[in-house]
Amino acid sequence: MNTFGRLLRVTTFGESHGPAIGCVIDGCPPGIALAPGDFAHDLQRRATGRTRHTSARHEADAVEILSGVHDGVTTGTPIALLVRNTDARSRDYDAIASRFRPGHADYAYWQKYGIRDPRGGGRSSARETTMRVAAAVVAKRWLADRHGVRVRGHLSQLGAITPRSMDWDAVESNPFFWPDATQVPELEAYMDALRKSGDSVGARVTVVADGVPPGWGEPVYGKLDAGIAAAMMSINAVKGVEIGDGFASVAQNGSVHRDAMAPAGFLSNHAGGILGGISTGQQLVCSVAFKPTSSLRLPVAGVDVDGNAVDVVTTGRHDPCVGIRATPICEAMLALELMDQALRHRAQCGDVGAVSPRIPATPGEGGHG
Amino acid sequence: MNTFGRLLRVTTFGESHGPAIGCVIDGCPPGIALAPGDFAHDLQRRATGRTRHTSARHEADAVEILSGVHDGVTTGTPIALLVRNTDARSRDYDAIASRFRPGHADYAYWQKYGIRDPRGGGRSSARETTMRVAAAVVAKRWLADRHGVRVRGHLSQLGAITPRSMDWDAVESNPFFWPDATQVPELEAYMDALRKSGDSVGARVTVVADGVPPGWGEPVYGKLDAGIAAAMMSINAVKGVEIGDGFASVAQNGSVHRDAMAPAGFLSNHAGGILGGISTGQQLVCSVAFKPTSSLRLPVAGVDVDGNAVDVVTTGRHDPCVGIRATPICEAMLALELMDQALRHRAQCGDVGAVSPRIPATPGEGGHG
Amino acid sequence: MNTFGRLLRVTTFGESHGPAIGCVIDGCPPGIALAPGDFAHDLQRRATGRTRHTSARHEADAVEILSGVHDGVTTGTPIALLVRNTDARSRDYDAIASRFRPGHADYAYWQKYGIRDPRGGGRSSARETTMRVAAAVVAKRWLADRHGVRVRGHLSQLGAITPRSMDWDAVESNPFFWPDATQVPELEAYMDALRKSGDSVGARVTVVADGVPPGWGEPVYGKLDAGIAAAMMSINAVKGVEIGDGFASVAQNGSVHRDAMAPAGFLSNHAGGILGGISTGQQLVCSVAFKPTSSLRLPVAGVDVDGNAVDVVTTGRHDPCVGIRATPICEAMLALELMDQALRHRAQCGDVGAVSPRIPATPGEGGHG
Amino acid sequence: MNTFGRLLRVTTFGESHGPAIGCVIDGCPPGIALAPGDFAHDLQRRATGRTRHTSARHEADAVEILSGVHDGVTTGTPIALLVRNTDARSRDYDAIASRFRPGHADYAYWQKYGIRDPRGGGRSSARETTMRVAAAVVAKRWLADRHGVRVRGHLSQLGAITPRSMDWDAVESNPFFWPDATQVPELEAYMDALRKSGDSVGARVTVVADGVPPGWGEPVYGKLDAGIAAAMMSINAVKGVEIGDGFASVAQNGSVHRDAMAPAGFLSNHAGGILGGISTGQQLVCSVAFKPTSSLRLPVAGVDVDGNAVDVVTTGRHDPCVGIRATPICEAMLALELMDQALRHRAQCGDVGAVSPRIPATPGEGGHG
Repeated sequence: MNTFGRLLRVTTFGESHGPAIGCVIDGCPPGIALAPGDFAHDLQRRATGRTRHTSARHEADAVEILSGVHDGVTTGTPIALLVRNTDARSRDYDAIASRFRPGHADYAYWQKYGIRDPRGGGRSSARETTMRVAAAVVAKRWLADRHGVRVRGHLSQLGAITPRSMDWDAVESNPFFWPDATQVPELEAYMDALRKSGDSVGARVTVVADGVPPGWGEPVYGKLDAGIAAAMMSINAVKGVEIGDGFASVAQNGSVHRDAMAPAGFLSNHAGGILGGISTGQQLVCSVAFKPTSSLRLPVAGVDVDGNAVDVVTTGRHDPCVGIRATPICEAMLALELMDQALRHRAQCGDVGAVSPRIPATPGEGGHG
Repeated sequence: MNTFGRLLRVTTFGESHGPAIGCVIDGCPPGIALAPGDFAHDLQRRATGRTRHTSARHEADAVEILSGVHDGVTTGTPIALLVRNTDARSRDYDAIASRFRPGHADYAYWQKYGIRDPRGGGRSSARETTMRVAAAVVAKRWLADRHGVRVRGHLSQLGAITPRSMDWDAVESNPFFWPDATQVPELEAYMDALRKSGDSVGARVTVVADGVPPGWGEPVYGKLDAGIAAAMMSINAVKGVEIGDGFASVAQNGSVHRDAMAPAGFLSNHAGGILGGISTGQQLVCSVAFKPTSSLRLPVAGVDVDGNAVDVVTTGRHDPCVGIRATPICEAMLALELMDQALRHRAQCGDVGAVSPRIPATPGEGGHG
Repeated sequence: MNTFGRLLRVTTFGESHGPAIGCVIDGCPPGIALAPGDFAHDLQRRATGRTRHTSARHEADAVEILSGVHDGVTTGTPIALLVRNTDARSRDYDAIASRFRPGHADYAYWQKYGIRDPRGGGRSSARETTMRVAAAVVAKRWLADRHGVRVRGHLSQLGAITPRSMDWDAVESNPFFWPDATQVPELEAYMDALRKSGDSVGARVTVVADGVPPGWGEPVYGKLDAGIAAAMMSINAVKGVEIGDGFASVAQNGSVHRDAMAPAGFLSNHAGGILGGISTGQQLVCSVAFKPTSSLRLPVAGVDVDGNAVDVVTTGRHDPCVGIRATPICEAMLALELMDQALRHRAQCGDVGAVSPRIPATPGEGGHG
Repeated sequence: MNTFGRLLRVTTFGESHGPAIGCVIDGCPPGIALAPGDFAHDLQRRATGRTRHTSARHEADAVEILSGVHDGVTTGTPIALLVRNTDARSRDYDAIASRFRPGHADYAYWQKYGIRDPRGGGRSSARETTMRVAAAVVAKRWLADRHGVRVRGHLSQLGAITPRSMDWDAVESNPFFWPDATQVPELEAYMDALRKSGDSVGARVTVVADGVPPGWGEPVYGKLDAGIAAAMMSINAVKGVEIGDGFASVAQNGSVHRDAMAPAGFLSNHAGGILGGISTGQQLVCSVAFKPTSSLRLPVAGVDVDGNAVDVVTTGRHDPCVGIRATPICEAMLALELMDQALRHRAQCGDVGAVSPRIPATPGEGGHG
């Protein structure tokens, strides 16, 4: 099941160390301006090899548009994007071809398919997320142009460190997507020490969407939050998803959690912009937990393909914290889900139009939570 | 989108205060024994009106099998189940037909459809989950009979209270699905005080599946954990989903999180039984956050359908903690997702068969996490 | 797979001699007026027991609306319809429970499921088509009200007899849906003789849709004609589907077949209103072949469930020509497919709007061919 | 909607004169041997430029496998295939960029999308069918290896000419896929005259599958014949589909049409191997009508994009009978549908196993009929 979405359908293909990765975007509305250069910005944000805090693999990530665009705009036919792999070093993986790396998908793939491509994790590699980000470039543009929706995200926890303040301008100015610039030296030091220790750490990413109109989302099994949860959990290394206050809601009282409403706007946003699976018009807030990567040079007890106990050591090039460059991936999945839901809403409710009263999002809301 | 699942497809219908609710289960294998009485146990576990800690609405929840069963076994044709609503008191809702209850789906439905059925929340009511539980009776039976899979759950947090011990026998012996019998008096007192105060509180439910073979789950967008996340988030009032260690992974090191493997079994289960979106053969562990219900007799600022500011007070019959009877619903969604994934796995990989080495689940594991 | 459609999804359930049949219509736009009485007209047109030329089974076909309608209009939530079976005589089928009727689905169901419900053909009975007709009442109304589309059909061949003229008013005035009233006595005599002989005969039904705007249909695998072909072939006893000139195109030259265009309108309609899988704005024309029913009192060589050769004689109540009352069923499937395609088109191309030049359908076109 | 299939999902992309065409095959079982050279045979059979009776365009059709294959076998991950276009002459189409060719998809695409790629018909070109044939190479292999199913086809009518005898060896020995070698000179002469006249003609293709076990096909909307009908009608220029006796059934009596059964085998095959939407174990027979191509150098009345009446003359390279090389395309769609249905059947009924009695296909049946 390598297709995401019901109406805007993105099918990705490709292995980490195969000749290429790519995707087909089907169901895209015609008339959207699109050129190969449009993908560069977000692919750079996701790419490895940009700082010492991510894997040293350096891919050009040059996108070739194979179909679906004519005279610079989408035509409504499938948009195929192709990225050649150029910096695959499969020899790095010879040592692990015959053993299952604990914490990795190796053993699960082996049990499922009876065969696996061990080079760089094959299909289970985070390399696949490149095409999510590429596909979402189209979704982000359509959402912005057609609906004024803006999707963005930031790192909201790195190990035990949390932001001391929230500044969107800071987010894009450091390699951690961290919202408080004053903390960057602390993060740098933390990551340097971690890398030296040979260990890794988890992270939390928060993504938000501003400008989402009320009404997107399909009860009951196609709820907007259900779609977002699946979208985020489909990203490598994700172990948890929250909407709005998420798990903090467990200890809350209803008198606190429920967001009061007034003609001038909602008075809070504990719900994270979704009620009953449908957007309310408030800021949409989603938080995602990334586990620490399991590819460490520290040895761990494992098993080989013959069933023997072995020590597993992972060399090769790896991220000490996969969450660091996960922000654009989470943004991508949110954008793809939102565009799909927007199209689904238009299909069923295209005649409903604007309904009164339309309550504004909380005035002055720029952050979340 | 009122259908759940890709191969085992459950379509539910019905409003809280309409004449009936029901479902159609399509794609079910033939030959499963099924009788109307089989639904009683789980529907009782989910039902309101059994204790003073849930809504006073008392429904018989008598299931009529309309199709798909002949001579006491499923035939492979769609199984339609029907439950008549018998204790709907729509007059309770007259007062709120013209105003949007904060924290409820009222406003979102209104904006989406331009119309809504205000009686008891209509389609957005938790009454819909009755049919999830009913449909999952079939899934639980098939999973147990065909694969030896057992799905069960318990409350793992009520407000700020957490279990002091884990005893599966205790879970079914108290109305809270609480795993430590000695804490039940404390919970009773807490709920009595809460009900008196007119307020509500959130809860956390943990569901596990034992005996899931390795190999279930479809990378990359049909991952088992992605499916579970969508399944859980589609339940009313859910705001967060975790697999295995979930958000605790954020502050963990990789050397701790990754589950070491040995020929005799996995040495820990931080992953919660899923790697790369595919089951590993370990216990599958999922944790779900329920928000506090917003239906309170305590007034809150709201807006009516004409856009005026109003105070909203919710009378009628409501749960002070919807999470209390959510355990069977979470079990149901896990069972439905697992059976769907099992069928999908058989379709693609039915020829793969058992692959060596097969690593046992952690010996002695009975709890989780 | 008991669901039809991608966005307007109709799921049917029920066996011929079970307690009830029904359907769930999901994805329906809100705001469509709908009452139980609205189904009577088309269900009567499809029903048996109205003339001596169809099966003597007489069903009330009273439709109960279980959900999805509030204050007389659809709400956007699933519309569940229920029809109780009242004239099932299962004893008629005792004799055939242990043998496979040649030309019937008995043997195929047995091989697929290892079990079957023999009463009246169970799920494979044409009784299932009742719910297609019921569901299409909603689609016909939406198509007419929202787009001015009119779907209608008639019998275009009965055995070797073909219409001598085309008069839509005649179609509804005789039990054969025959477009030339002067031929009705001939048809009556033919059917009387056929019934006496114990044999059956095939038929051809032609359905057309007027007013379909250009642009409906999704290339390349979701083509409008591909969808119609599947829709028609899913009807019991259908063995062939044609669009426009259909098989007559085989012997045509391109200079004849291609429909010339002029600003005032298309000059012919050999294409049947579809090019490249997309509607052109001309009359949509589809022709369907129904085989003769295999339920005859004339004996035929067969096999019983133990593998022995047996003579099979079918008593019970059967149609000597199932095609006679198939017209409303074909109309129903065309309407459901058109509405689904209309919603899919709106989803993807809702921003395209009217494009110039818009060429009128052939002036004066009332028939087809 | 550029994806075909529910479990074996083939997504194609690419325009006739774009840089490349390709496909992604998802859901394919692991362990199937596959190499780039495996595609050559069927792609050659489909290709233009091989004889003077098809378009002069000559494409290398070299297939690059981008993913999903490791060590020469499929891994269960998506198989991406890429074919670069090398002989596109877009200047041929400059003249028609501003006018709608009657009988073509030009006008329909224009109305749907408000934009179109006029080069060689863009997405609506038969060039797209290359990838259907490529994808079906995998399906044909799996069907043969796993189930002993053989899919093959032949031309069964060219204009008014029909075969005088049926010889499968002859089919592959002439460029027409004609089953009677003695008629080939007649066909050559017919085609030469047709080409000189500047006109085109239609054709009928018959495809059969031998060895299909009973039980494949999902009632009621996923019937095997419904799937085949959609599959065939999705091919460019197809106007009609028949299963078994097809439209001939209309004039048949039931006593003739129903296929008698005996322990030693079915006594005839009017049904074409499908009853109730499920395969019976007999030879599966499907017949498809192709219209004559509309691309003629003979002028026809048309309309330009400004709404003016114009004469349209199509130069460029075109097939005088698209049906001639349609046989491998029809085979491809039948193979893809069969494999998809086989996987779906295994998912739901994998536990049913072989059911007695299993009736053999008609003894001695080699043709169809």
